[in-house]
Amino acid sequence: MGKVSCDITISLDGYSAGHHQTEERPFGDDGGDGSGAALHAWMFDAPEENRAEIARLNTAGAFVMGRNMFGPVRGAWDRPWNGWWGDDPPFHAPVFVLTHHPRAPRPMAGGTTFHFVTEGVTAALARARAAADEGDVTILGGATTVNQYLTAGLVDELRLHIAAFTLGSGTRLFDGVPPLNLRQLTSRPTSLVTHLTYRVLP
Amino acid sequence: MGKVSCDITISLDGYSAGHHQTEERPFGDDGGDGSGAALHAWMFDAPEENRAEIARLNTAGAFVMGRNMFGPVRGAWDRPWNGWWGDDPPFHAPVFVLTHHPRAPRPMAGGTTFHFVTEGVTAALARARAAADEGDVTILGGATTVNQYLTAGLVDELRLHIAAFTLGSGTRLFDGVPPLNLRQLTSRPTSLVTHLTYRVLP
Ligand SMILES: NC(=O)c1ccc[n+]([C@@H]2O[C@H](COP(=O)([O-])OP(=O)(O)OC[C@H]3O[C@@H](n4cnc5c(N)ncnc54)[C@H](OP(=O)(O)O)[C@@H]3O)[C@@H](O)[C@H]2O)c1
Ligand SMILES: NC(=O)c1ccc[n+]([C@@H]2O[C@H](COP(=O)([O-])OP(=O)(O)OC[C@H]3O[C@@H](n4cnc5c(N)ncnc54)[C@H](OP(=O)(O)O)[C@@H]3O)[C@@H](O)[C@H]2O)c1
Repeated sequence: MGKVSCDITISLDGYSAGHHQTEERPFGDDGGDGSGAALHAWMFDAPEENRAEIARLNTAGAFVMGRNMFGPVRGAWDRPWNGWWGDDPPFHAPVFVLTHHPRAPRPMAGGTTFHFVTEGVTAALARARAAADEGDVTILGGATTVNQYLTAGLVDELRLHIAAFTLGSGTRLFDGVPPLNLRQLTSRPTSLVTHLTYRVLP
Repeated sequence: MGKVSCDITISLDGYSAGHHQTEERPFGDDGGDGSGAALHAWMFDAPEENRAEIARLNTAGAFVMGRNMFGPVRGAWDRPWNGWWGDDPPFHAPVFVLTHHPRAPRPMAGGTTFHFVTEGVTAALARARAAADEGDVTILGGATTVNQYLTAGLVDELRLHIAAFTLGSGTRLFDGVPPLNLRQLTSRPTSLVTHLTYRVLP
């Protein structure tokens, strides 16, 4: 069976997004314009240096994400929204979106299909594992979603990108998660960020 | 003038100690026996690999620490306590201990003298700077102390050692600290820990 990884960028104080997300400010109060620019500077300002980690982020047999990562629509799906990523999202694989609001699957160009799962984290992972066949599953965020998977003991590997600022408030990775025993696998600094991977030990 | 650094070990979720510190359990509910073994495994289980960071931790013209790092005595100094470090502490320089309870300075062997400062973080740093002459000042913790210095904008450099576990609760670095703009200076992984240094930008 493939492994289950979480892959998420955090500020040095552990936040993966600010509060008050909107369509215009997908990362909310992120210390800048709400675009997540400081968090993701490593991807957009230094893509060459961080090529391996960018490639790995979008390479899995299937993905899981929370509904707020998918977009700013809340409550019923009462207006068209197919993610932040345009017609050909970078996933090229099935993406399982956790939500309390049922919606039909939405195929996109390039092999990405968004599936909406209302049965919770275990069910979403089971569907992602089945879709990935023997491949890996990557849980992309946000922190609300990752924290549930960590708490449920369903994560094999944690891939973190630690950006060089603190945010002071927002949605925090590990918030409410019981203690985890980890093994540091790799730690790779580039000019803007440190990439860390950990195995989650039993 | 020398620079002001904070040097502290944290779990991956940012805790530098557990709750419920006692004399028998100086690190409180730290996930183990209260000795801080998991946080400080890098110092005690792999000293050779981490020699540079251990040496740097104890090299400054003067040090500042909080009263809880100094020891478990609370309230009035109603029983003898001269720190956790025996007769010849590893500082070999003046150490300024923040407390609300006045106490006479306590000289130790090897050049360490503990001074007790009741006038707050700015006064303690001013005294440490004067004592260090042109040398550097290191703020050693705990998080309550470091967070006050970060909030006051008095820190030039942050030296963190990120241990491979999460604690889930305790005293958290950055808790309540307003957003900081940082520059990652160095990032060095060893087998048990990643050492990160940041400049605090204005
Ligand atoms: N830094 C990074 O690398 C990174 C990565 C991803 C996202 N982000 C940012 O993080 C923010 C989103 O993260 P977030 O933590 O706020 O939210 P999230 O995890 O993306 O989504 C949370 C939402 O997903 C649904 N959901 C989650 N668990 C569920 C469950 N067990 N059952 C049913 N529905 C469930 C709920 O939506 P409903 O109840 O409304 O259906 C919930 O409100 C955004 O600002 C995004 O841009 C950052
Ligand atoms: N992981 C690490 O690298 C590391 C480093 C250092 C310490 N630690 C651990 O962290 C724990 C202690 O940290 P902590 O955050 O609880 O406390 P701390 O910062 O060591 O000490 C806090 C205490 O210092 C005094 N104090 C702090 N600021 C003051 C101010 N502005 N004015 C006057 N007094 C002030 C107060 O004591 P009074 O009011 O009682 O006088 C306060 O309760 C211990 O478990 C220690 O072993 C870990």
